[in-house]
Amino acid sequence: MQTAVPLQLEHARFIRSLRSVRRFAPTPIPDAVLRDVLDIARWTGSSKNTQPWELIVVRERDRLRELAACGTFASHLAGAAVGLVLVMDDEQRRLDEGRLAQNVMLAAWAYGIGSCIGTLQPDENVERARALLGVAAGRGLRTALSLGYPADERALRRSLEPGASGVPIGRKPMKDFVSWERFGQRQPG
Amino acid sequence: MQTAVPLQLEHARFIRSLRSVRRFAPTPIPDAVLRDVLDIARWTGSSKNTQPWELIVVRERDRLRELAACGTFASHLAGAAVGLVLVMDDEQRRLDEGRLAQNVMLAAWAYGIGSCIGTLQPDENVERARALLGVAAGRGLRTALSLGYPADERALRRSLEPGASGVPIGRKPMKDFVSWERFGQRQPG
Repeated sequence: MQTAVPLQLEHARFIRSLRSVRRFAPTPIPDAVLRDVLDIARWTGSSKNTQPWELIVVRERDRLRELAACGTFASHLAGAAVGLVLVMDDEQRRLDEGRLAQNVMLAAWAYGIGSCIGTLQPDENVERARALLGVAAGRGLRTALSLGYPADERALRRSLEPGASGVPIGRKPMKDFVSWERFGQRQPG
Repeated sequence: MQTAVPLQLEHARFIRSLRSVRRFAPTPIPDAVLRDVLDIARWTGSSKNTQPWELIVVRERDRLRELAACGTFASHLAGAAVGLVLVMDDEQRRLDEGRLAQNVMLAAWAYGIGSCIGTLQPDENVERARALLGVAAGRGLRTALSLGYPADERALRRSLEPGASGVPIGRKPMKDFVSWERFGQRQPG
């Protein structure tokens, strides 16, 4: 695909277009594409450039299924082409963990690959995941990302877990999201 | 700028290119651009789509200076064209906070706008920031982003605070970042 639209608008539109995908095609992710996603992940910014993270790539189907059972709302991991597990230096690096997760999701999306965040919880599931992956106590181990090409058109439109019917669709309006100068001041000064 | 390169490669390159910028030109950010950055922020994904966040836009110079004094390594806020303060529903939403911060930084970057994360700390500074911005106790208030056009070429190359000489440059190599199937297994199976 080529474009005649200014790139800045294309990039902005691209970022806004990211949605979670929970159902994946069996198509594998080419090694060169996976490598580029990992490299973009590696370049994510972090507090004082501490890079308080590593990733584990999981592609063995049995391991993905076990990982899926270590979370709530994490069943999507069982069918992922690749699972990417975020291993943080300690349990306090959640903001940097979020930056890394978002960057990985966008990097995959650039290649047409869908993704979804799976949260490893509660604590006894985290312990099982530690054993499964060989991650020592003390390291942050809360987030496993599913990656894969979307199963079909519907997987792109509707990203929710079956049964999660209480989850709202869309986003709150701008007037409930932005304040100006002081919290609750809903008009620019 | 137009392109003949496939868009997916352009998007991937764009994400990887994000760097922090700490010194800004006096040029204001056009309202239409700011609005689009805010809209991309609004569309950021969050756990179960809870959207546990709001933003405060700060453009008054005195308020930006006071905000800069509420953090460590946050002096960049004093010279920002716009400060964006993340107000989270509670203190536990750090992963989603990181996703939002990363999306805002990328959205700004799409328009050639640099950004840097300022952390409000320690607790007494957070209290001062609460008073300054009218944010009640209990809400998460830890992150203020500086936004602005880069001051000059050097601001793009070297993003560190003067004096933060212990901060490493670049990123760790892939072999220290990625494991395969199990933590510490440095070659694909």
